Amino acid sequence: MADKTFNIVFEIEGGGEAAASAFPGESLLGAARRANVAIDAPCGGNGTCGKCRVRLLSGETGAAEDDRGRIGGGPSRFVSPEEYADGFRMACSVRALSDLRVGVPRGALAYRNNIKVSDLGVFREQRIFADLRREMEALGLGNDPGLEVIRLRLSPPDPGDPTADRERLVRGISAALGVPEAEIGVPLGVLRRLPRALREAGFSVECVVREEAGGKRRILGVYPDPGADTAVETPAAGDGAQPGAARIAGLAIDIGTTTVSMLLIDLETGNMISTGSAGNGQIRYGADVITRIIESVRPGGLDRLRDAVAGECTEPLIRSLCEKAGISPDRIYRAAVAANTTMTHLFLGVPPEHLRLEPYVPAFFEGRTMPGKDLGMSVNPEAEILIAPSIGSYVGGDITAGVFSSMIFRKETPSLFVDLGTNGELVFGSAEFLFSCACSAGPAFEGGDISCGMRATDGAVEACRIDADTMEPDAVIIGSAAGRKPAGLCGSGLIDLIGELFRCGIVNSRGKFVREGRRVKHDEYGVGRYIAAFAEETEAGREVALTETDIDNFIRAKGAIFSAIRTMLAIVEYPPDAIEDVYVAGGIGSGINIGAAIRIGMFPKLPLEKFHYIGNSSMLGAYAMASSRKAAEMVTSIAGGITYLELSSYPGYMDEFVAACFLPHTDASLFQ
Amino acid sequence: MADKTFNIVFEIEGGGEAAASAFPGESLLGAARRANVAIDAPCGGNGTCGKCRVRLLSGETGAAEDDRGRIGGGPSRFVSPEEYADGFRMACSVRALSDLRVGVPRGALAYRNNIKVSDLGVFREQRIFADLRREMEALGLGNDPGLEVIRLRLSPPDPGDPTADRERLVRGISAALGVPEAEIGVPLGVLRRLPRALREAGFSVECVVREEAGGKRRILGVYPDPGADTAVETPAAGDGAQPGAARIAGLAIDIGTTTVSMLLIDLETGNMISTGSAGNGQIRYGADVITRIIESVRPGGLDRLRDAVAGECTEPLIRSLCEKAGISPDRIYRAAVAANTTMTHLFLGVPPEHLRLEPYVPAFFEGRTMPGKDLGMSVNPEAEILIAPSIGSYVGGDITAGVFSSMIFRKETPSLFVDLGTNGELVFGSAEFLFSCACSAGPAFEGGDISCGMRATDGAVEACRIDADTMEPDAVIIGSAAGRKPAGLCGSGLIDLIGELFRCGIVNSRGKFVREGRRVKHDEYGVGRYIAAFAEETEAGREVALTETDIDNFIRAKGAIFSAIRTMLAIVEYPPDAIEDVYVAGGIGSGINIGAAIRIGMFPKLPLEKFHYIGNSSMLGAYAMASSRKAAEMVTSIAGGITYLELSSYPGYMDEFVAACFLPHTDASLFQ
Repeated sequence: MADKTFNIVFEIEGGGEAAASAFPGESLLGAARRANVAIDAPCGGNGTCGKCRVRLLSGETGAAEDDRGRIGGGPSRFVSPEEYADGFRMACSVRALSDLRVGVPRGALAYRNNIKVSDLGVFREQRIFADLRREMEALGLGNDPGLEVIRLRLSPPDPGDPTADRERLVRGISAALGVPEAEIGVPLGVLRRLPRALREAGFSVECVVREEAGGKRRILGVYPDPGADTAVETPAAGDGAQPGAARIAGLAIDIGTTTVSMLLIDLETGNMISTGSAGNGQIRYGADVITRIIESVRPGGLDRLRDAVAGECTEPLIRSLCEKAGISPDRIYRAAVAANTTMTHLFLGVPPEHLRLEPYVPAFFEGRTMPGKDLGMSVNPEAEILIAPSIGSYVGGDITAGVFSSMIFRKETPSLFVDLGTNGELVFGSAEFLFSCACSAGPAFEGGDISCGMRATDGAVEACRIDADTMEPDAVIIGSAAGRKPAGLCGSGLIDLIGELFRCGIVNSRGKFVREGRRVKHDEYGVGRYIAAFAEETEAGREVALTETDIDNFIRAKGAIFSAIRTMLAIVEYPPDAIEDVYVAGGIGSGINIGAAIRIGMFPKLPLEKFHYIGNSSMLGAYAMASSRKAAEMVTSIAGGITYLELSSYPGYMDEFVAACFLPHTDASLFQ
Repeated sequence: MADKTFNIVFEIEGGGEAAASAFPGESLLGAARRANVAIDAPCGGNGTCGKCRVRLLSGETGAAEDDRGRIGGGPSRFVSPEEYADGFRMACSVRALSDLRVGVPRGALAYRNNIKVSDLGVFREQRIFADLRREMEALGLGNDPGLEVIRLRLSPPDPGDPTADRERLVRGISAALGVPEAEIGVPLGVLRRLPRALREAGFSVECVVREEAGGKRRILGVYPDPGADTAVETPAAGDGAQPGAARIAGLAIDIGTTTVSMLLIDLETGNMISTGSAGNGQIRYGADVITRIIESVRPGGLDRLRDAVAGECTEPLIRSLCEKAGISPDRIYRAAVAANTTMTHLFLGVPPEHLRLEPYVPAFFEGRTMPGKDLGMSVNPEAEILIAPSIGSYVGGDITAGVFSSMIFRKETPSLFVDLGTNGELVFGSAEFLFSCACSAGPAFEGGDISCGMRATDGAVEACRIDADTMEPDAVIIGSAAGRKPAGLCGSGLIDLIGELFRCGIVNSRGKFVREGRRVKHDEYGVGRYIAAFAEETEAGREVALTETDIDNFIRAKGAIFSAIRTMLAIVEYPPDAIEDVYVAGGIGSGINIGAAIRIGMFPKLPLEKFHYIGNSSMLGAYAMASSRKAAEMVTSIAGGITYLELSSYPGYMDEFVAACFLPHTDASLFQ
C-alpha cells in the first residue's frame, strides 16, 4: 500500500482541466470521479470493459490497489504493449507513483455535449404523443393539473381598511372562486415575497392557485398582472417571463439508468413546449444499476449518486428547457418523475442497498408526492412532484407509467408491453389482469456494451440496409439533414445492422463473420468487425464498426428479451398467438425495424401489424401524470393491479435463455 | 468620507476577542454588529442612550459618518472630558482612523451568560402553570397533541414476503391502529432512514405517529423499541435518548422584543420538562420594534434579524433544553410560537416594513402551521410549528395566546388583561365581546431604558422596602439564596422601589429627589439618584442605583399603561369599577406589588383581590397550543373575536397620557 498522496491533473481532449489528489493506492478512475471527470466505466471499474483508456502525459503509474484488492496495471487485451509504451493506461487499473498529468480522450468520456434541448420541430415522437393525448381525452383524463390562473385587482390598503396583505389577497381569491377564506392557504415562501409583490404590481395581480384535497386552495404564485394598466416602473415581482410564455408549466421527467429525458409542458393547454435529454451522470460509477447500488453503499456514495443525477442532469436540464421557453423555473408548478426502482431510490436519496441483497427488498413501492423544495429542485418550491409507483425491485415507475401510455390496461384481449431500456421489462395483460417480469438485458439497446454504441442522438446510425452482393451499407444518420456525419450506432441501428448482416450471410447464427471484403476486417486477436463507416467518413475521424464482441453482447440482450417473453407466456399459460398487440417502448431511435427484430430472434413471429413502437413510454406516462391528476391516480391504480413474476424462480428460464442466444434461435422453426 | 478600511479587534471584558474590518466611515457599533459582538444599543445607535460605551485601548478614532450622516465623536453628556481622555467612546458615534483595539466592558454588552436553562425546581411560575392546566382540563382541552407512540414487532422480509420496507411498516401501523394503509403516510426524511432503522432495530420498533386531518396518519419517527429483547449491537437508529426521557416532546416559545423564553414539554403527559430563556439577539439593532423594522429594510437586514433571533437564541435554547433533558431535538414533534406582530414577521423571515408605514399593514394576521424543516429549526423536520395569530400591527400572537391563558374569554362579566412587555397591550372583555389596544410603554418593565435595569434573572432586585426615616432599603435579590449579590433592577423591583421612594417622600410627584442622605446623590450635571446597593455590595463592584432619568422613563411607561386603560374604558363606555378582574402578565419578576403599582398611578384603584399576576402569559398560551390541538383552535377563534381599537385615533388619548405622567397622576383623587 503506497502511503503517499500525489496530485493528478486531468487534461480533457478538446479543452478543460481538472485536478485531484489521489489517495494512496487509489485508481486514476477513482481520482477522476472525485474531480468530476466523467470517465466512462460501464463495468464499474472492474477492468473488464476497456472503456476507460487514458494516456499518461507525465509521471509514473503502478498497479492500483483499492478496496477490491490489487488489479494489474500493465499491458492487457485492452492496452497492447506498444500502446502501453506510448502511455496508454486503463484508468481503473493504475495508480499514481508520482504527480501525474493525464490526457483524457473524448472517447473515454461517458458523455459529451451532455445536455440536448429540442424545440418540438425535431421531437421525434410527436405522433405517438398526439395519439396518447387523444386517448387521454377520450378517457376523460385530459388536461387536469388542478391549477388555475386568477387575475385580481385588489384595493390597496388605507386607514379605513388596514387588512393585512395575506388576508387582503385571500379575500380577493375567495370572492373570485367562491371558496371560503378559511379554505385558502398561502405558503411561507409566497408570504415572504407578498408585501413587495403586491406593491410592485400596484395590487393588480395574476395568481396561480392549486386546488387541493377537499376543495381547499393554495396560492402558489403572485405575479404582476401583465394585462393591468397600472403604471408600475419596475415589475420586479415578475420573473422575467417573456410575453406569451406559459404561465403555468409542468415537467415530465424520465430518469433512465443511461439517459435522463425531460419534457416541458404548458399546463394551461397540455401542450408540449420543448424536450431535452442528457446522459445520466451516474454512468461514471458503472453502466448498470448493480454497480450504482454498490457505489451507494460506499461512504458518501448515496449523496454522490444523487448529485450525479440531480445536480448534474435534471437541474441543468430544467434550467435549459426554461431558458429556451423564456419562463422562470418558478413557474413550474407540477412535475412527474418515472424511473426504475433503483433510479427512483437514488433520485430521492433513499438507500437502495437492499435491492441487491436477498430477499431483494426496496425501501418503498408507493407513488409519492412531495413539494419541490423537499428535493431541492429548481421549480416552484411548492410544486407538486409526483413519483411513479414501483411494483418490484426490477419493475419500477418507468414501467407503471409506461403501461399507462401503452393503454394495454384498457383492452379486452391480452397484449404485451415490452420496454427496452438498460433492463428489459415486460407486462402482459388486459383490463382483466396484468402480469409483469424483468430480465437483465444489459444496456445494448441504449448503445452501452457496444464499442461504437451511442444514444439515439445526432450522428447515430438509426437504420441500415446492406447490399447482399457488395456488402456495402446504406445508413440513415440522425441529423444528416443538418450535415451530421456518422458517429456511432444507436439501438434501432444495431438491430437493423445485425439483422442485415445475418440476412446477407455475412455473420452466421453464432454471430461470427463468415465472409470477407473491404467492409469486413479482423484484428490481431482474430476478432472480426463490420465497418459501417470508414474513419474518413465519420464525425470524429474514427471508424464506426460492429465487432463480434458487440454482436455477442447484443445477442445476449435480445436473447434475454425473447426468453423472458416465452417464459412469461408459459407461466400464465398463454400461447404466443394469444397476444393481441405488442407495444415496444424504449429510447432506441426513431422506431424499430420489427422485421429485422423478428428475423434475429428478438421478438416472436407475429404479424407485423400487431407491433407498435410507442417510443419513450416512461416519459409519456410521466407527461400524463404531470398534466392530469386523474391520470396520476390511474397510474397508481394500475400499479396496484399488476402481479409481479420472478423469472429466476422458474427453472425453465435459463434453458430458454441459452436457446435464444443464437441468430435467431436454436429452434429456427419458431421464426419461419 | 474616509476611504480606507481599518481592522478592529474587540476585546471582551472577562474573556473573548472578535475582529472586524470597518467600512470607511462606519461606526464601531456597526463593525461590532458584523463581528457578532452584541454591544447594547437600545436607542438603535442614535447616540441618545449612552449604553454603548466602549474603551479605546490603542489606535485613533474620529466622528462616525454613516448612512444617517455625521454624528459627533467627542465628549458628551455620556462621556465626560476626563473619560474621553481615558479612552471612553460611544461605539455608535466614532469611527476608526487607524487599526484599533477596543475594550468592551461587560456592562456594554446587551446580554451576558445569555442562555439560561432551569429545571423545574427554580421555575417561578409553577403555580400559575398548574392553574392553567387545571382550567384546560376542566374545559376538555387537556393534553391533546395528536401524537401517539406505537410499538411494533414486524416480521423481517423473506423471499415469501418481499414487501418493501415502507409498505411493511405501514401494514403494521394499519393493523395496530385500524386505519387503512392508504391513509398512512411516511415523509421522505423518515423513508431515507427507514431501511437502516428497521434493520438496526431488528424490525422491533417504536413509531411516533401523528393524526392528521380526516383521521389520516403520518409516521414521523421510527426508533428501536427499547423494550424489545432483540439482540441489537448498535442501536444507531436510536437518537441517544436517555432511558426514561420523554419519547415525544413539545416546545412552547415566547419571542419577546427583549427576551426569548422557552418551555420543553413531555407531550405524553403534558408536563413541563424544563424552561429556558435568552436575550433576544436582535437587541443590538435597537431596543424597540421600530429600530428593528428600520434595520430589516437595510440590505441583508431581514436575514440578519432572523438569524439574531433564530440562529442565536431559539436554536441554542432548543439544544440546551434538549441536552439537559437527555433527549434528541428530533423528538420534538410539535411547537408553538407566540410573539408580537413584528417579532412574528422577523422570526418567519417575512418583511415587516409596512408595519411602520401608513396605514400600518402587516403582511399577515392568521395563525400559521408549518413543518419544522421550513424554518430550519432543530426539531423533527416534520414537527408542526404553530404560530399564534395576530390581530393588529401592535397586538400580536403574544396577546392572543396570553388572552387564552388569562381565560377572560370565558367569563360572564368583563375583565381586563394587561401585558407589560416592551409595549403594553390591553384586552378588555368577556365571553360576550373582546376589545384590545396597544400603547407604546417602552422597555422599562423589562429593564430597558433604565440605567441599572435588567431582566428578572439572578442578581435582579425584584422587591424592595425603604425605611421612611433612614431611607435604607431592604431588597429581595433573585438568587440570593445561592449567594448572588445585587446586579440591577428588574421590572417588579422598579415598581416597588419607585413606589417606596414616593411613599417615603424621597421623590416628589414629578419624580425629582427632594431629600438628601447617604443613599441619595446628585452627579455633576445635577441628576439625582437613589443608591439601592453600593459598589462594594454588588456583583460587579458597580453601584446599583435609580436615577431621575430612569424615573422619568418609568413614569412615561406607567403613564402609557394607565392612560390606555382609561381611554379604552371610555371608548367602550365602561366605568373603571365595571372591571371584574385584572390579569397582569409580563416577565417582570416574581410578581408585582399591586399596592405599589396603584400608589404610583400605574393601575386604577380597585380592590387588591381583583388583581391577578399571571406571569408570562404569552409562553403559557404557547404551552396550551403546543400541548393541545383543541387549545390551538381556541386561540384562533379567540383571535377572530377580538376587536382592535386604535388609541391614537381617539383625541382624548394624548391628554390622558400627559395627565398620567405624574406620581400618581395630576388628578390624585383617582387614587384615594
